[in-house]
Amino acid sequence: MQFADRLNQVETSAIRELFKLLGKPGIISFAGGFPDSALFDVSGIRAAANQVLTDTPGAALQYGATEGYGPLREQLAGLMRARGTAELAAGQLIVTTGSQQALDLIGKTMINPGDCVIVEGPTFLATIQCFRLYGAELVSAPIDANGVDTDQLEALMAKHRPKLVYLIPSFGNPSGATLSLERRRRVLELAVKYQTLVVEDDPYGEVYFDAPPPLSLLALSASVPGSRDLLAHCGSLSKVLSPGLRIGWLVAPAELLAHATMCKQFSDAHTSTFAQSTAAAYLAAGHLPAALARVRQVYAERAQAMADALRRELGAAVTFTQPRGGLFFWLRLTGAGGASTDAAALARRAIEQGVAFVPGSPFFAQAPDGATLRLSFATVGLADIDEGVRRLARALAAV
Amino acid sequence: MQFADRLNQVETSAIRELFKLLGKPGIISFAGGFPDSALFDVSGIRAAANQVLTDTPGAALQYGATEGYGPLREQLAGLMRARGTAELAAGQLIVTTGSQQALDLIGKTMINPGDCVIVEGPTFLATIQCFRLYGAELVSAPIDANGVDTDQLEALMAKHRPKLVYLIPSFGNPSGATLSLERRRRVLELAVKYQTLVVEDDPYGEVYFDAPPPLSLLALSASVPGSRDLLAHCGSLSKVLSPGLRIGWLVAPAELLAHATMCKQFSDAHTSTFAQSTAAAYLAAGHLPAALARVRQVYAERAQAMADALRRELGAAVTFTQPRGGLFFWLRLTGAGGASTDAAALARRAIEQGVAFVPGSPFFAQAPDGATLRLSFATVGLADIDEGVRRLARALAAV
Repeated sequence: MQFADRLNQVETSAIRELFKLLGKPGIISFAGGFPDSALFDVSGIRAAANQVLTDTPGAALQYGATEGYGPLREQLAGLMRARGTAELAAGQLIVTTGSQQALDLIGKTMINPGDCVIVEGPTFLATIQCFRLYGAELVSAPIDANGVDTDQLEALMAKHRPKLVYLIPSFGNPSGATLSLERRRRVLELAVKYQTLVVEDDPYGEVYFDAPPPLSLLALSASVPGSRDLLAHCGSLSKVLSPGLRIGWLVAPAELLAHATMCKQFSDAHTSTFAQSTAAAYLAAGHLPAALARVRQVYAERAQAMADALRRELGAAVTFTQPRGGLFFWLRLTGAGGASTDAAALARRAIEQGVAFVPGSPFFAQAPDGATLRLSFATVGLADIDEGVRRLARALAAV
Repeated sequence: MQFADRLNQVETSAIRELFKLLGKPGIISFAGGFPDSALFDVSGIRAAANQVLTDTPGAALQYGATEGYGPLREQLAGLMRARGTAELAAGQLIVTTGSQQALDLIGKTMINPGDCVIVEGPTFLATIQCFRLYGAELVSAPIDANGVDTDQLEALMAKHRPKLVYLIPSFGNPSGATLSLERRRRVLELAVKYQTLVVEDDPYGEVYFDAPPPLSLLALSASVPGSRDLLAHCGSLSKVLSPGLRIGWLVAPAELLAHATMCKQFSDAHTSTFAQSTAAAYLAAGHLPAALARVRQVYAERAQAMADALRRELGAAVTFTQPRGGLFFWLRLTGAGGASTDAAALARRAIEQGVAFVPGSPFFAQAPDGATLRLSFATVGLADIDEGVRRLARALAAV
């Protein structure tokens, strides 16, 4: 059978191979990118599901509008307004099957084979693959602790004239980095200067530990004339409520949103109305703030425990910026004391020691840094975080 | 903003414009393609949802495997075995977000811009658009009361050497036609002869009125050597249980299924585990046969009422084959007695008379037949079917 040429753009994930090893008994896994199931507000979701099956079973189980279930669009617009995007109307967003589908629709709507797309180096692996399937040529813009380096971003925009720039400004996956307020404004100015679409992926912005991150690009666009017309924003309930509902959303300029809706019609018709109406009832019941407060507190404790353990057990062997939200630590092996800087080799050795993580190279669309690695604390209890980091130190000593 | 060239392949749907008129009060609508919400087994679905949120909330609300939720894949494989596909294993299918996504994944996996795809004339509108978004050049194979004309299909396959052939063999949308057993075997032989993938879309096969349709192409492939390796089969719970769950599935040869899974990973990561686990629990509880029996009985009555009314009210002005399953009547205006044969003009006039239907032209990828139209009886009660057809007769007299 002759498959489509676009499949040649995507390699089988190195991470997928690693995940096959995770079944080993007793492994402490920092490899996942999942929220902790124990934090799901199951009773709130159950109440919401029962409510919609009692009050509006037709709407919950029937076909629905491709744009999304009206009451959910209203709730999500309300969330966005509460997060600083004044006057966002429900009609300015569509519901997607997870924010992954928002990315897919952007790719389908925007990208011609050969188009350049600028992403952060490192960035979300599934975005790299998703855009490559539409034929995008990806260019990496370097990041530091304050997110993407906007001077280098501008140089790359001037050189490559990309179709779009994709950023995860708050607590990025895998970097954990947060784009500073000053750089956020600069990104919006660059969008206007180069008349280039910026895609803001924001699944983690509400998962902060002490204080909220700077306003989203979407919220800030009100203060940078012309930028709102060049901004797409992807949101998600996956990290704050439940990934299994598969509720994401896309805010975008009207014409882009209309095209994305048309593409969605022929991708999956619409997102599950059962899940959408349940999410709408849950949000309407006002349960989210309490659930989010718990998520923030638990993850803050785990992140602090991981930071402490890393400093204590690994010391000068790694550098990292302590994340202030999200699910991830991004480490770089320094080679101090003659230790290895090969994160892929370390990953294999770590499995032998009973701890798993993801080496960083696959997260780079260009110029992979083989000394980097990603750790997630999200699903690991405090004692296991300590023990896992100790095992990591043993693995590093043994490489 | 410069959008992707692929958007130019798709026109805005003429049907969509028509649907805007449906809000008129008192309209009897034969225009929809929806099942009747009143037939949903709400209590069975509620019980299933509560069960999974009690027994397996982690699985129901967490991320899941891209291939689908294991227990649901087992249940769906069991359904397929019960429908005649012996020895189908759960690993030979993936769960999709509605069967629409199965079509999208086939398009993404198989179609290069410029590839020829043969479809029935008429065929499912969203398939036409879905495949065109991947750059397919569609060719229509004519159908009659026994489904696609396999002699003409072979001639088209020989001439165009298509990438794939897409068929809805049982109670097709919009045709209502059912491919005969003899032709089903012939289609499988043609797949082998021309080494061409055949995609069998089967959302309606279980919605039969008196007797089941002939065995599916998938089931029959066991008796045509080599054909199983060239057959993809799309299934759906939308017409038999609930469209809002968005549960479809794809059975395909191993390599195609692996590529489709990879594409799905970057399309929506996975189908809602909340919806999947609820569907799995529903099927495991054994509720489907009773729900299906009710669906079959109600639709059979409505289809008979519509056939009777059409013969009584429209007489020689239309021809049609009475469907033996599914949701649709496909009519052709004969022009008898000097009446109009312009179904689009009739559709506008019918709205004025208080009845809606969909003109047939958009369902043709090539050579539209402007005298055709589609009526659905699925959501209309018996008295309204009579009255709606009377209005249709008045509209035809007035054109």
